[in-house]
Amino acid sequence: MSPFHAASIGAAKARRQRLSTLLGDTPALIPAGAPCSRNFPSNVYSFRASSHFLYLIGHALPGAYALLEGERTRLFVQPPAEDDALWHGAVPSFAELAAQLDCELVALDQLPAALAKLDASSLLAPDHATQARQRELLGRAPDASTSERDARLAEAILSLRLVHDAAAIDELRLAGEGTVAAHIAGMHVTRPGIGEAAICAAMEMELRRRDMGTSYESIVTVHGEVLHNVSHAGVARAGDILLADVGAETPRGWAGDVTRCWPVSGTFEGGQRDAYQVVLNAQAAALAIAKPGTRYRDVHLAAARATTQGLLDLGVLTGDVDELVADGVHALLFPHGVGHLLGLDVHDMEDLGDRAGYAEGRARSEQFGLSYLRLDRDLEPGMAVTIEPGLYVVPAILEDETLRRVEAGRLNRAALDALNVRGIRIEDDILITETGHQVLTAGAPKSVAEVEATVGG
Amino acid sequence: MSPFHAASIGAAKARRQRLSTLLGDTPALIPAGAPCSRNFPSNVYSFRASSHFLYLIGHALPGAYALLEGERTRLFVQPPAEDDALWHGAVPSFAELAAQLDCELVALDQLPAALAKLDASSLLAPDHATQARQRELLGRAPDASTSERDARLAEAILSLRLVHDAAAIDELRLAGEGTVAAHIAGMHVTRPGIGEAAICAAMEMELRRRDMGTSYESIVTVHGEVLHNVSHAGVARAGDILLADVGAETPRGWAGDVTRCWPVSGTFEGGQRDAYQVVLNAQAAALAIAKPGTRYRDVHLAAARATTQGLLDLGVLTGDVDELVADGVHALLFPHGVGHLLGLDVHDMEDLGDRAGYAEGRARSEQFGLSYLRLDRDLEPGMAVTIEPGLYVVPAILEDETLRRVEAGRLNRAALDALNVRGIRIEDDILITETGHQVLTAGAPKSVAEVEATVGG
Repeated sequence: MSPFHAASIGAAKARRQRLSTLLGDTPALIPAGAPCSRNFPSNVYSFRASSHFLYLIGHALPGAYALLEGERTRLFVQPPAEDDALWHGAVPSFAELAAQLDCELVALDQLPAALAKLDASSLLAPDHATQARQRELLGRAPDASTSERDARLAEAILSLRLVHDAAAIDELRLAGEGTVAAHIAGMHVTRPGIGEAAICAAMEMELRRRDMGTSYESIVTVHGEVLHNVSHAGVARAGDILLADVGAETPRGWAGDVTRCWPVSGTFEGGQRDAYQVVLNAQAAALAIAKPGTRYRDVHLAAARATTQGLLDLGVLTGDVDELVADGVHALLFPHGVGHLLGLDVHDMEDLGDRAGYAEGRARSEQFGLSYLRLDRDLEPGMAVTIEPGLYVVPAILEDETLRRVEAGRLNRAALDALNVRGIRIEDDILITETGHQVLTAGAPKSVAEVEATVGG
Repeated sequence: MSPFHAASIGAAKARRQRLSTLLGDTPALIPAGAPCSRNFPSNVYSFRASSHFLYLIGHALPGAYALLEGERTRLFVQPPAEDDALWHGAVPSFAELAAQLDCELVALDQLPAALAKLDASSLLAPDHATQARQRELLGRAPDASTSERDARLAEAILSLRLVHDAAAIDELRLAGEGTVAAHIAGMHVTRPGIGEAAICAAMEMELRRRDMGTSYESIVTVHGEVLHNVSHAGVARAGDILLADVGAETPRGWAGDVTRCWPVSGTFEGGQRDAYQVVLNAQAAALAIAKPGTRYRDVHLAAARATTQGLLDLGVLTGDVDELVADGVHALLFPHGVGHLLGLDVHDMEDLGDRAGYAEGRARSEQFGLSYLRLDRDLEPGMAVTIEPGLYVVPAILEDETLRRVEAGRLNRAALDALNVRGIRIEDDILITETGHQVLTAGAPKSVAEVEATVGG
């Protein structure tokens, strides 16, 4: 059992009260989810509770279900087994748990009876076993999709989680601090010949010693052009740029998400330095407009335009900036979106689909590149988002017949090759404030000079 | 995709051939299992394939199914999606995979048709989603238990996996090396005031930089009396003994499993030293008879007797050794079994239940303590097992009314308190050889002098 964290538990209670004003008397069943087996039943992945549960209860309780009805919250929990105290230590009694979590505690076997009288709404747990049990408990078919009631619950929770409260912001700051420390540690240990795994280990150690985990599988690679490359089997050599996309997860489950790139030798070679500066300028252009009222797609497009202008200046692209961006030519080298919501999930509330990232009436573009943008809402104070432009030389894109037609002679391959880069991304976490934004991860070295001064030292 | 490892893939082919001589033409469906969602579908726990699949294929392929029929092996795999190359890099073609893995490759959507003509046996995947799909594919009811055919398959695979081949032994040695390095690193960083999380981080970093993971959730705690204590939130102080139960998992999935205990100050205090020596002597007594032909329960009882003798010498117990052991009095202080099978799983093949650990005709005792023994087979050359006696002061045991009756005045609480210990365990991994055994984890400091010389330095 993880330690009780009074601030998170108190914040959770306030969130439940806010939720009840949105839902009225509609009951809501929020499962914590259950540990998943790695290879045999008692050997499980380190348990991570559902984000909705963490948000509304403030504490991870494997296998528990929260049943919310107006201002009443009942937590249905499996009572301790006889030998739990031997294997897991002194387990809090129901009375102690109830006092700590400020909820009613009920034995799990009472849940079917409690639900029988209700037509509860629910959000699916992350794990398949709990999902199956959940459908059974709610009297739904095994393949039932979510109901309209569920959709209303999702909208209500979403509206709360979109705008972070003070306790959430404290956790995001903490995640940011751990994440920054990890990146500095990674830069410090880097020298030619070191394994990607050793750099990753040094970074994750900074998190583990803070009793934090990672909010997603760490990407630490000299092949940054493979966007979700979670292999660490390679070796970093002089001339390579190392890309590290590593984020902390606080003990309460809140996420950091930062990417930095640094030269393994400690010095960017000429073309690499130019390419790095293009991405840095693109991030600056995006940050410049990241404030309340800005549509997030415009943040993306600002990064796209700056990237395009940078590549024009380097002779990698030819043509008109606006035309190149409108045609999506930049997306051949910057294929992903400029960022996403951040909160308890690294892609916050992605379990709810594009309903989370896209404002009502907005939908994903079908254009290559823009189609991968995970977020298109107007920014509001209290939202946390990432800003992460990048520049990649991806053979699968550049050799694709359809995509080559987009290019239409406006990409100079020789100039691109001369940059001598495979993949660069620069990513920070920001919190939208009343007047603009705060960078939650500002401590991670970022300018060419800062990065070069940190690598190997 | 993890790198191909020729030795593991070659060994897997030989294992399939041995399996086919046991099974004849009975077809067997072996799923790799699928990644499990942590909080939203695309954010998954680091994938760990089913051990049976790793054993028989030698490579982790998320979502794949192996269909074995005599000497023929077909691997059913989801063909790459169009944008896989963008997110995951160049994906090997079916022809390349077939060549690397020395199997036929077939698109996953062909699996239902292939199975329709067969009455295949199968072993369940670890994850619930694959289990559900597996029952569907095999035309079984959602809650179907395993069939007699499945039991025969389980017996056949079990008979192979019980006796490790050369490739398996190489992997177990590698896991042992990583595990030893982790424990030395943990001792090195320990000094009064350090967090359990920081010690755990230093240990796991030794594994991560070898591109290894952990074969189970690390136990690193000053409360070793909580047997499965995976919290790392505490602080190690002078006077505490730190218990670290941490094991490597090689990139191919093989497990190490070692426990060491060390004094946070660098020096065992008087009573602690005595208690530590009791456990060390118990391990020596168990190791002394760990050789072919010995019944594993006798290894357990040898540790129990040595523990009892040690506690008699210290005045913690009074009475006759054999009587105390027969009555299970030692189990009040050494409640768990002395070890278990080791292989691809840290409790090898525990997914198959006691069929794996218990020889035919043998079953678990109902006596407290012995009831937790996971293994009771006659040792054979090629088996790998752990040897892990311990000594614990567990309030939940010592205050239990029923268990106090076992004691019957033969436990001197004051003498026990004077030892000033909460939990001590000493665990190594051994391979049974033709003439005795080899300790795979011998490099981890173990004697009082070795441990004291390593802590803090």
